[in-house]
Formats: sequence, C-alpha cells, structure tokens
Amino acid sequence: MALLESIGNPDDLKKVSENKIPQLTQEIRDFLVSEVSRTGGHLGPNLGVVELTVALHRVFDSPREPILFDTGHQSYVHKMLTGRQDFSKLRKAGGLSGYPSRAESEHDFIENSHASTVLSYADGLAKANEVRGRSDRTVVAVIGDGALTGGMAWEALNNIAEGRDRRVVIVVNDNGRSYSPTMGGLADHLATLRMAPGYEQALDLAKVALNRAPVVGPPLYEALHGLKKGLKDAIQPQMMFEDLGLKYLGPINGHDEQMVEKALRRARDFGGPVIVHCITQKGKGYAPAENHDEDQFHSIGAIDAETGEVKSTPGVVKWTKVFSEELVKLGAEREDIVAMTAAMLHPTGLAAFAEAYPERIYDVGIAEQHAATSATGLAMGGLHPVVALYATFLNRCFDQVLMDAALHKQGVTFCLDRAGITGDDGASHNGMWDLSIMNVVPELRLAVPRDATRLREELREAVAVDDAPTVVRYPKGEVSPDIPAVGTLGSMDVLRRATDGGHSEDLLLVAVGPMAETCCEVADRMADQGIGVTVVDPRWVKPLDDALVGEAAKYSVVAVVEDNGRVGAVGDAVARALRDADLDIPVRTFGIDQKFLDHAKRAAILADMGLTPQELARKLTETVSRHTEKPLEDEPAQS
Amino acid sequence: MALLESIGNPDDLKKVSENKIPQLTQEIRDFLVSEVSRTGGHLGPNLGVVELTVALHRVFDSPREPILFDTGHQSYVHKMLTGRQDFSKLRKAGGLSGYPSRAESEHDFIENSHASTVLSYADGLAKANEVRGRSDRTVVAVIGDGALTGGMAWEALNNIAEGRDRRVVIVVNDNGRSYSPTMGGLADHLATLRMAPGYEQALDLAKVALNRAPVVGPPLYEALHGLKKGLKDAIQPQMMFEDLGLKYLGPINGHDEQMVEKALRRARDFGGPVIVHCITQKGKGYAPAENHDEDQFHSIGAIDAETGEVKSTPGVVKWTKVFSEELVKLGAEREDIVAMTAAMLHPTGLAAFAEAYPERIYDVGIAEQHAATSATGLAMGGLHPVVALYATFLNRCFDQVLMDAALHKQGVTFCLDRAGITGDDGASHNGMWDLSIMNVVPELRLAVPRDATRLREELREAVAVDDAPTVVRYPKGEVSPDIPAVGTLGSMDVLRRATDGGHSEDLLLVAVGPMAETCCEVADRMADQGIGVTVVDPRWVKPLDDALVGEAAKYSVVAVVEDNGRVGAVGDAVARALRDADLDIPVRTFGIDQKFLDHAKRAAILADMGLTPQELARKLTETVSRHTEKPLEDEPAQS
Repeated sequence: MALLESIGNPDDLKKVSENKIPQLTQEIRDFLVSEVSRTGGHLGPNLGVVELTVALHRVFDSPREPILFDTGHQSYVHKMLTGRQDFSKLRKAGGLSGYPSRAESEHDFIENSHASTVLSYADGLAKANEVRGRSDRTVVAVIGDGALTGGMAWEALNNIAEGRDRRVVIVVNDNGRSYSPTMGGLADHLATLRMAPGYEQALDLAKVALNRAPVVGPPLYEALHGLKKGLKDAIQPQMMFEDLGLKYLGPINGHDEQMVEKALRRARDFGGPVIVHCITQKGKGYAPAENHDEDQFHSIGAIDAETGEVKSTPGVVKWTKVFSEELVKLGAEREDIVAMTAAMLHPTGLAAFAEAYPERIYDVGIAEQHAATSATGLAMGGLHPVVALYATFLNRCFDQVLMDAALHKQGVTFCLDRAGITGDDGASHNGMWDLSIMNVVPELRLAVPRDATRLREELREAVAVDDAPTVVRYPKGEVSPDIPAVGTLGSMDVLRRATDGGHSEDLLLVAVGPMAETCCEVADRMADQGIGVTVVDPRWVKPLDDALVGEAAKYSVVAVVEDNGRVGAVGDAVARALRDADLDIPVRTFGIDQKFLDHAKRAAILADMGLTPQELARKLTETVSRHTEKPLEDEPAQS
Repeated sequence: MALLESIGNPDDLKKVSENKIPQLTQEIRDFLVSEVSRTGGHLGPNLGVVELTVALHRVFDSPREPILFDTGHQSYVHKMLTGRQDFSKLRKAGGLSGYPSRAESEHDFIENSHASTVLSYADGLAKANEVRGRSDRTVVAVIGDGALTGGMAWEALNNIAEGRDRRVVIVVNDNGRSYSPTMGGLADHLATLRMAPGYEQALDLAKVALNRAPVVGPPLYEALHGLKKGLKDAIQPQMMFEDLGLKYLGPINGHDEQMVEKALRRARDFGGPVIVHCITQKGKGYAPAENHDEDQFHSIGAIDAETGEVKSTPGVVKWTKVFSEELVKLGAEREDIVAMTAAMLHPTGLAAFAEAYPERIYDVGIAEQHAATSATGLAMGGLHPVVALYATFLNRCFDQVLMDAALHKQGVTFCLDRAGITGDDGASHNGMWDLSIMNVVPELRLAVPRDATRLREELREAVAVDDAPTVVRYPKGEVSPDIPAVGTLGSMDVLRRATDGGHSEDLLLVAVGPMAETCCEVADRMADQGIGVTVVDPRWVKPLDDALVGEAAKYSVVAVVEDNGRVGAVGDAVARALRDADLDIPVRTFGIDQKFLDHAKRAAILADMGLTPQELARKLTETVSRHTEKPLEDEPAQS
C-alpha cells in the first residue's frame, strides 16, 4: 500500500503521475476487500467507484468545490483519499462512519443516507454560489441510476436545468448490471464522438441526426426508471438529459480513470449544469462479487475475503424471514393480497412472495410516495396491498399514508422492517420515527409484535382490516424466543401479573413489542424487591384498548417502554389516554432519546440510554417507592 | 337552466344531442358564475374545465370507469353532472364539499386536495383491474400542468408507462395562461395531424420527421416544469410523453367539446396508457377573469358576479400580510436572506419579497421535498433561506426537514401559513399536523406567535438562528388585536397572573399562539369563580423553556390549549416535560380532535370541539375543583 499510504489529502492525489494511477486503484481495491471483509460494510458499491472517486478528487478542488454523494454508502474511497485510512473500526463506536460525516472531515457534506436528495443539495449550493458571487466554483453531485427514479430527483433536475449559468456537475453512477456487451460498442462510439473537440459547437446541428435516429425503446423511461434493470433497450440516454436542458457527456466507462478525468474536466469547463454518465460495475475487481448474479455484496457482514463466503451464525431466525414466510402463506390463502416494494425486494423479504406470485408483486422504484398512494389505488380497486419498507423510509410518504390511505379509509398494510435502533448505519437508518408520525394519522391502526408468533398473528390481523391502513413494525436482526402470555386483558396480552407473587398492584408496565423481554426482566427484578408489577403487551398500540385505561386505575404507577423516539410515541399516547379519562396516575415513559444517534451497536446504544432491565428497574423502583411509600429494600441497581 | 336541470346523471348527459352541447356548457358557466360568486369557491379552475368535464362524462362510464381529479378543486362541473346541482351551501356545513367527496357520490374517488397524487391512484386502480381480470375498464386521471412538477407525478408516470396493456387515460389540463396565439396555430395543426385516421399506425414512421425537427427550446423541461409559466418555448410537449413510453394525443383545444370527445374516444380505444393534452383557459367565458393577468379568480370569496369585484371588509389585516411586510424589511437588512415558495408566490405573501429582491427568490414548482433540501443546500452555502408554505403541505417534506435540514444543523426557516383549522376547504387543507410532526424533529425550534407583533418578533428570532431549522406557524385570515404581556418568565410571556387578583395559584394555562385570546378569556371567567389562573404564552414551543416546568410546580393543575391535532403536539410535550421532571401534577390538554374534519366554518368547528372560552372554563373549573377541593361557586358554563 506504499502509494495509497502516501496520500493524506486530495492535493497529494493530484501530484500522482498518470501512469501510477493503475497501481493506486489496485491498492485501493485490495484495501477495501481486506478491510471491509473484516468489519462488514458496503463493499460492492465502493469497489464500483474506485476510478470515479480518484478522478473526482484529481479534477475538483474539494472542499471548496463540494463533492456530494447520494445515499453516501459509496464514500469509502472518498474517505481514503481525504485523510481517513484507518478502517479498523468502520461503523463501530468511535470508528469511521459508513457514510460521509461532517465530524470526520471538511470534505464531507451530506450525512443523510436516504436516496435521491443529492441533486437538491447541489441546486441549493449552486444558487448560494451565484448569490454570493462565487460562480466560478463547481458543485459536484454523484447519484446512482436507481436514485433517479425518486421523485425528488425529478424535482431537482427541473430546478437545476433552470439555472443555465450555475456550475453543477451531476455524475450519474450507473451500475445497472445487465448492461450488455453489444451496448458497450455503441457506448464507446458515442463517448468518443462526444469527447471530440468541437463537440459543444457541433451539438445543435448534430442533435437531430445523432440523437434522434435509431430509437429502439422509449429512451427517457428506460434511461431513468429502466436503468436499474439494465440499459438493454436504452440506446440513447443522453436524449432525455438534453431534453431536460442539461448538457450530457457519456456514457463513459467508469473504470477507465483517464476517460472519466477527461469527461469531468470538460464538464467543469462547460460553466453550466452538466450530466456525466458513468457506467460502472458493482464489486468491480473482486471475483466473488463479479461472479454473482444477485446483489449480495451490496452491504455485507464479515466475510471470508478469499471466497466471499459469509461468516454466519447457523440457526438464527430473523424477523424479515418470519414476515417473508407468513406473507407467502397469506398469498396462497387470499388471491386479493398483492405486495409492493420500493426497490428493496430482497432486503424486505418480498423476494419469496415475488417468486410465488409474480403477477402480484410491484417494485415501484425508490418511490415511497408513489408506493403509498398507488397502494391506496390498489385497495380502492378491491385488492389488499402489503407495502414492505424499512421503517425510516416511511418518513418519505407520511403525507400519502395520511391523506391518501387513511383519509380514504383504505385497507393498505405497511410492514416496517428495521424499526427501532439499527445502530451500525448511523442516524438516518435508525427506525425511530415511525411510531410517532403514525400516531398522528387518524383511522390508522398499528401493531408492534413482541416475537415471531405475534408477528405472524398480527400480520394476519392487519391484512384482515379493510377499512383503514394498518402498520406492523419489527426490528432488524434476530428474533428472540417467544414470550407466552399468561392471560389477556381485552385485546392485550398479560405477560406478568402483579398479584401472582402475592404482591400488590404497584406498577402497570406497558411493554411495546420487542421490549417485552426487557420488561419481563424488569418485573422479575422488582418482584424480588417486593414490588408488584403487571406487564402487558398491547399488541395493537393504536388505537389503545380501553381495557388499558380500566386496568391502569388499579395501579400506583404506570410506565411504558418502547423502541422508538420518545416524542409522540406510545408513552405519550398512554399518558394522554389516562389524562383524558381524568385518571391522574403518575406515568413514566421510556424510549429512545429524541436526537440523532451516532453509529454504534444496538445494545450499546440501548444501554447508553438506560433501556436495560437493571436501569429501568432502578428508576421505576424509586418512582413506585415515592408513590406507595414502600421502603426501598435493597439497591436494586446492584442486582 | 332548462337543459342542465334535466341532467341527473351521466346517462342523461350521454343522451343530449351534439348540437345541444353549446347550450349546456353555457348554462353550466352561467350557473357557476352566479352560484360561486355568492358562496365563494374555486371559480376560475372550474370555468376552465366545462367542456372537458362534459366530454369526459359523455365518453367514459363513471363510476365503473373512475374519473379522478388531481387536487379536486376543479370538480364542480363533475358534481353538477352527477346529480349535485344544489350549490347554495357550497363549502358550508351540511352543504357540498368544495372537493370530491365519497359521502356525496359514488362518482367521487379522491378527497385529498394535495397536488400530484392522481397518477398514483390511477396506477393502483389500473393494476387492480388487471389482477381482477377487468382490464376492459379504463381509469381516467385529470391533472394540471403545474402538478406535473411534483416528484410524485414523475414516480407515477414511470410506473404507469411500465404497464403497456393497462388502460389509463391521463388528461393534462394545461391552463398555462401565457400560451401565445402563435402556439395556437401549431397546436391546431398538430392536433389535426394527430386526430387523423390511421395516426397510430403511422406514428412509428412519422415519429422522427414529425417530432424531432424544429427543436426550439428544451422540450421536456418546458413541457413539465415550464408549462406553468406558459408554453412559449415548448413547441413539442408530445416528445417527452412519448419518450416516457406513453402514447400522446394533442394538444387539443380544451374548449372545443367535440374535439375533446373525439380525442378521449381515441384514447379509450387505444388500450394502454395515453396522455391527452388539453389546452384550457382558467376563467373561460367570464370576462372579469379572462381580462385579468393575475390569478385572482382561482379561489374567491363572495364577489359581485357582474364586475368580479371582491366584497371585502376594509381595514382587515391578515397574518399573511404581516409576514409579507416583515420579510421585505428583513430582506433589506440582511443580504443573506433568500426566500422560497413551492408554486405559491402570491398566497404565501412572498410576491412582495420577489418584487423587492428578484435575485433572491426561488419558486421550485409544486415540489416541497426539493424546497426543503435545496434550502438546506442554500444554508450550507452561507445564506439563510425562508421557505413559505401552507402548513398542511409541510407534510410533504417531513423527511427532508428531518434528515436534511435538522440532521445537518442548517439555519432554514419554514414559515407556515394556514396553520390550525382553516375550515372551508375540508379535511386535507386544515393545518393540524405540523406541530405534531415537527415536535419529532431533533434540533428544530418552533414558534407560534399569538399576534402580529409576536409574528414580527418571532420571525426575526427565527432567521437569527443559524445552527438549526426553525418553524414559525400562523393561521389563515385576520389577525386579532395585540395581546400585551404583563410580565415574562424566562423566554415566555405572562398574559395573566393568578396572584394579581389575590387568587391562589390554581391553574397554569399554557396558551399556544393564537389561542391566547381564548385562554385569557378562560382565565377571566375562572377568576370570576375565585380560581387563580396564570396564562403564559411560551412563544417558542420547541424546545420548551425550563422555566415552564419550574413554574408549573407551584400550581394544582396545568393545562394546554392549542390549534393543532392533540396527538403529539404541545400538550403532549408539556405533559412529558413534567413527567420527566418527576412532577406528577394533573395535566389537561385541549386541541383539535385527531380526526379528518368535514368542511365548515372555523368558529363552528372550534365550538364543536369545545375550544370556546365557556366550555374550556367549565371543564377546567371542574378539574381544579377536584384537585384543590375548592367548591364550585356557580355553574360557570352558563356565564
């Protein structure tokens, strides 16, 4: 790694002679494979942008000229070239973030890893340059082909195109993997043509002849939406960009560093908005990734660097898998059930449904807004759609869930994977917002299963609702063993009873979904202190069962524990229900602190916020003691 | 109105002979002008779609073939043709809604009046038809040119284009008003060409010659984004639709009912997704509207039908005006302040700023997502953007406010007009969600001014914050006289003091913004009962001032009154703050019931939900009495 180690910043990179670049890019690839196979992370996307990133930093003057990455998981190479080559604690507490991070470097700008936003940032930064008389500076935005299907990208392209004199270079990192060899020939031909001197001058005249002739498919559609499936039919993506009023350069072979540099220099010199269309290959240069059809090296855990094999724990059952299997069963039972994904067929577990019922699956692209509203249309048409999303991406369609699905009382089921703290991926991947914003939506019903059995049951209950949207949310990772109910209270499950151990009714503990395990341990610890704790799992947290309020009246203290931001979540709802019933019982609510969390392991974050059995038992014992005048027997935090 | 009255449903309309149609459309126009000038409503848009709507109902078999309207304010003619000709109580309690309403008619489908959603519903309904083997049915979506700038429309077009055999007719109602006469000639020419028999067959051959020749501007950009400014440079909008894989018919003169009918029949018979591009004129046939340059007949109050003059109350000062004037002043003081609107320059009061500082105003189209994120980019670039939106439309960019503006700690100020109950426009225009979803956003600060002076002050305080997004929200309509503070408590204003009248500290009443007037009256009424009430206006409701918790400790009861949905709003925040401080004081929270509200006058809705001084005083007196064991002196509800 002799050469790579010598590069502490982009200025060092600019001094590397052209003939050393292949050595450098090889060193970068070797580094990525050896480091990321140990730590886990986004291996495939970063192997795809090695040459592109090197070229970007050789051409532009970062950070004066910001290089912005959409979603940001492809910024590892950028990190290595901007002074960050210690990947030993990648995505771990105290180590490098898996995304750009302003705390790490002045070269990083966007920390949000939700897709399709980068062009809007670029538009704003370019407008600011214009207003402040710094219009010689270029703003660079790197966006994947898939992200162009998001509506925000369309809104931004329209606005960027309007500023004919603003310097914005949009690099489309197009890694559609089925890009065929035939296409390569034409692409090279077009690229050569477009890179030739005098191209800009000749463009207007050449336009009709060059662009309009061999139309095979619908180019705009394929160029944007179709790209994610490959460029098979889209011979001339440049058409759509130039129709948009944006200069277009490409397609460029994104692994030919010199070609990319040349294109970027031309783009920079153009002085207005330009698209540079780079064709890249995910996993480039790493045989296990190149030889795989599916996209399993996109984001990996620890793997064997040599073979690419996953170092997995056998016997682990994940929430996603439980959902996936149950939905396939439901699909067999009910022909009206259809499923929908926003470009995440595999990660959300819908691939099995798609295979079983290919005529009942819809992948709408990275387009959550359209997902929610077209699902409403499907429901109006007599079907029952199940929309599977990561919890954090539900933010994108809040208005559509509210004003389309709920206002029209349609039976659409949203299944939210990765709800609660996810940890490794940092602030914008934690699923800590959905309970709060869904609580606002009238009519909507919301279930939080505590274990695999409940996920299966509550999913079935959700798809049985045909007059309101329903939400079922569950966390990332492994499912713990089932927690059986010892009784029921209305529609709620009772998991522990205060009176079972002869204790009085001191504390009613409302366990939201997967926090049930923690809550039962809290109850056991407090019972050891002579405090009577009843634990209930409401199963459906919206609406709350009236039985909860009725039961609460018997207790000295009511508490709620949940894996969501505390603001506006179940704790607030329980407290409000009690107030509205004129029940002025002390309430305590526990959940995720309402702040943007740094990346770290889930367990560490929970402990940091006091969401452990020990800490919860300690706090609640104090509260109960104050309100019942029970003496504290021992210091329970020590147990 | 002989002919119009004879039409009770679309079947009656289909029986009207072709030569009677001009009489019918004239009767419809006369009816619209005479009725809407009395009641107020969306006059201009409906006058623009008279022939179009007649043609739609003559060609399609509603409701078996749904006719869907985007935003829905242009559905009056549709109502008249589907059995609803009593407009006497339009937009009033018990009368017709100003939007489609499923409670009114089986011909109505979409009640949400937020823009750009209709294509997504249509996609879902068409997919449902396919799955259910009803693929002979057509789904019709009517969308304005402006709504096509919204990202959702782009997401939907991509998905609709994918279903080559699904019958979706998209009617683009293009009322760009600066559409020049020159364009008319070409449009007619193109329309004639395209309506000719054999057009479909000839299309593939003709495509290159016909579509590609006289490129004047960037057609796609102009066709979508530019359309709202007029079609001046967009000679060939059909290009972009056909590039998208969508058959295109048009442009059609939308006021030639026979031409429109003919185009719709061809579209219906095509058997796949088709765009029908209709050029219409807002206010068509009504001289005062036709002769006006600006769009003041879009949505009107009561007017003089003859002259179009507004029957206004002189001397009324509106919240929008106060904001507008103060922002112009700020613009003069600070060159770094820029303003942004999402296609609502006039309604949000930004027109004055635009006139004063034309180089510092951005209209991004109906694109709230892009607005929030490009504003974040502007802030990163060293400017301070002020984004003016209707409160309800902030829903559209929740994720962008959270993950872009707030996560990156950027000083972007969102000014939300029409916050709280607006009433007339029904469920989707009430600004009752913003406080709840903004409370979830870490870092963000939120002000709710109680009067004009506070709006000016708090706007100034907001634009002084450069390390977090800020929100200032204010209602529709007239500002009441200023309510002076009698003191301060930390950053809060004290409006009434319990101890001033010698009363004890019974109730701390937190008045959120414009509810201050009501709260002061509550305090006065309760003081008459011997109950001591302190009223505070927190001014900034997020974060809450610690002084609020400190003060609350002195009182027997704490209450919050606000003009937002109760769930997750300020009431919940105050209750949580008290819980977190181990202060177990009874709290009562009052706000808008968390449900979709039928249209009615604001005052009537507030009264219906008990948000009047009488009812609040009655309830709070009871609560205080219970917790202080003060006897009820009289029945305060009677006072």
